[in-house]
Amino acid sequence: MRIAVDAMGGDYAPQQAVFGSIMAAKEKKIASVLVGRSEEISRELARYPDYPQDLITIQEAREVVEFSDHPAMAVRKKRDSSIVVANQLLKKGEVDAVISAGSTGASMTASLFVLGRISGINRPAIAIPLPTVKGVTVLLDAGANAENDPQDLVQFAVMGTIYASAVLGVATPKVGLLSIGEEETKGNKLVLETHQLLKESGLDFLGNIEGKDILMGLADVVVCDGFVGNIILKFAEGMSSALFQKMKEALLQSPLTKLGALAIKPSLKQLKASFDYSEYGGAPLLGVKGVSIISHGRSDAKAFKNAIIAAANAVEQDVIGKIQSSLDRNGK
Amino acid sequence: MRIAVDAMGGDYAPQQAVFGSIMAAKEKKIASVLVGRSEEISRELARYPDYPQDLITIQEAREVVEFSDHPAMAVRKKRDSSIVVANQLLKKGEVDAVISAGSTGASMTASLFVLGRISGINRPAIAIPLPTVKGVTVLLDAGANAENDPQDLVQFAVMGTIYASAVLGVATPKVGLLSIGEEETKGNKLVLETHQLLKESGLDFLGNIEGKDILMGLADVVVCDGFVGNIILKFAEGMSSALFQKMKEALLQSPLTKLGALAIKPSLKQLKASFDYSEYGGAPLLGVKGVSIISHGRSDAKAFKNAIIAAANAVEQDVIGKIQSSLDRNGK
Repeated sequence: MRIAVDAMGGDYAPQQAVFGSIMAAKEKKIASVLVGRSEEISRELARYPDYPQDLITIQEAREVVEFSDHPAMAVRKKRDSSIVVANQLLKKGEVDAVISAGSTGASMTASLFVLGRISGINRPAIAIPLPTVKGVTVLLDAGANAENDPQDLVQFAVMGTIYASAVLGVATPKVGLLSIGEEETKGNKLVLETHQLLKESGLDFLGNIEGKDILMGLADVVVCDGFVGNIILKFAEGMSSALFQKMKEALLQSPLTKLGALAIKPSLKQLKASFDYSEYGGAPLLGVKGVSIISHGRSDAKAFKNAIIAAANAVEQDVIGKIQSSLDRNGK
Repeated sequence: MRIAVDAMGGDYAPQQAVFGSIMAAKEKKIASVLVGRSEEISRELARYPDYPQDLITIQEAREVVEFSDHPAMAVRKKRDSSIVVANQLLKKGEVDAVISAGSTGASMTASLFVLGRISGINRPAIAIPLPTVKGVTVLLDAGANAENDPQDLVQFAVMGTIYASAVLGVATPKVGLLSIGEEETKGNKLVLETHQLLKESGLDFLGNIEGKDILMGLADVVVCDGFVGNIILKFAEGMSSALFQKMKEALLQSPLTKLGALAIKPSLKQLKASFDYSEYGGAPLLGVKGVSIISHGRSDAKAFKNAIIAAANAVEQDVIGKIQSSLDRNGK
């Protein structure tokens, strides 16, 4: 098992990517290929003299796709960028999966262009694992698409079910269709049509679920178009920031609250962590021919480590093969 | 000023509606007409012997629209229901505004059927005030529509601007268009088209904003279609429940955390309240010919009181007249 890590991607590159790879190597014996400017990566590796040299290698790539670059343009022009080279390694079979915390658009485009779509898949989707009160729910599409049709959403449901079952260990994942009411007559045209298709899909379809049901963990797989999914994902991030910011202010109000805050600090930290994306190892781009994990731009070493572990799981569980054979079975 | 309150609407009807009206009368000298089954309302009023009798009257209505009723059907069939009668009082000019915490669908339908649309408005919208880290932002449409076109969204922006300025006291409200990226090239077809229209609308248009910007208070008015708005609103409710539920568990972990929790309890309560819809007095249905406030089904007396105050403000500030003249001015 070898995972290509885009060492130049993310707000804290290459430091956190490098240390995350070392953590995964030490703790899980997973090998990484760090892709990017070798002098920068080597300099960073030199800070960890005891790093497992047999498990960490470097693949030179001179260019870097910046967050300010136009994703599709950058991927086309910067052929020697870390994100493109990482995907090429996967395409050539030199690694088993690829991870990037760089621009989501560029990661997506690079995987789509270099790896290509699984035959039969119309549109790949970003499947984001969301922490709920019960465990983890996969929501897709979280933003690979700006617009989708009913057939796309059915494919998302199929891919999400396979991912939840193979990687997250949910025996028979329940699928919920995100809408504005539980009744099958509630929703926009896209949802009304998708509902009928999902009823006949053979999946464990719960029916429509509402926004409030997502974090209650009602469904294991939540299906929506990429526009809605991306807005929810970003809204959740913003709401979490807003709440914890307000909470901090509340806890610093008086000497008494400060004392109280001290007593509950470890519990609160744990709480914050349980709503933290980095625990869940990034979001797979499902539907491309290879395991491609898109991590948050703010990823720290732990987030990279978890993404590497998630990628290894997806490879071991043959998620791509399972998606392919499910499509073949259903003649889609 | 007299406000019709649907005394039979909401999870805690008629108790909380009645007590909320008494609070508004005592604290703000606002008169209410309690609409519903008079014997139930009288029995409730009798529990407050000193209630201001000159400010609280009863209007008999024998029927009740239940949450389980089909909204449009119920409004058409139950002509003597509290929600229909309350709207008729407004139509006849016997009251200045109407408030209901009953089924959102029924309140909306009753106001739409009985009051009618403001001439030139294609689709009314529910404008929900959301607490942000900076203050309050109005998001619309929060669920009056399952589908919208660009012209609808421009009208939402106009109505939201008028409401934010007249009722929430924002001098020149900034309008944000909810999308999946700040650039004007990001979004679905609806958003791309709306963006161009808003640029030429004469409103203080910020451009696209993302999900994470909403609760940061970047815009005073956030515009989106009713499907997206409703999902966000419900998601926010669910996320708030999930977080405070998890926080409670975290605070009861050990004797030490329990002690700490005791010290911060008042601050946390305040925090929870600041993210609580009931502080903000319900959501106006903008675009109908009259002030109609839709309150949350879980409204308590304070929520009713705040809804009554918000309704009185909207009447005093002539929100309906301002929407009408803005449409006339722009020839829409």
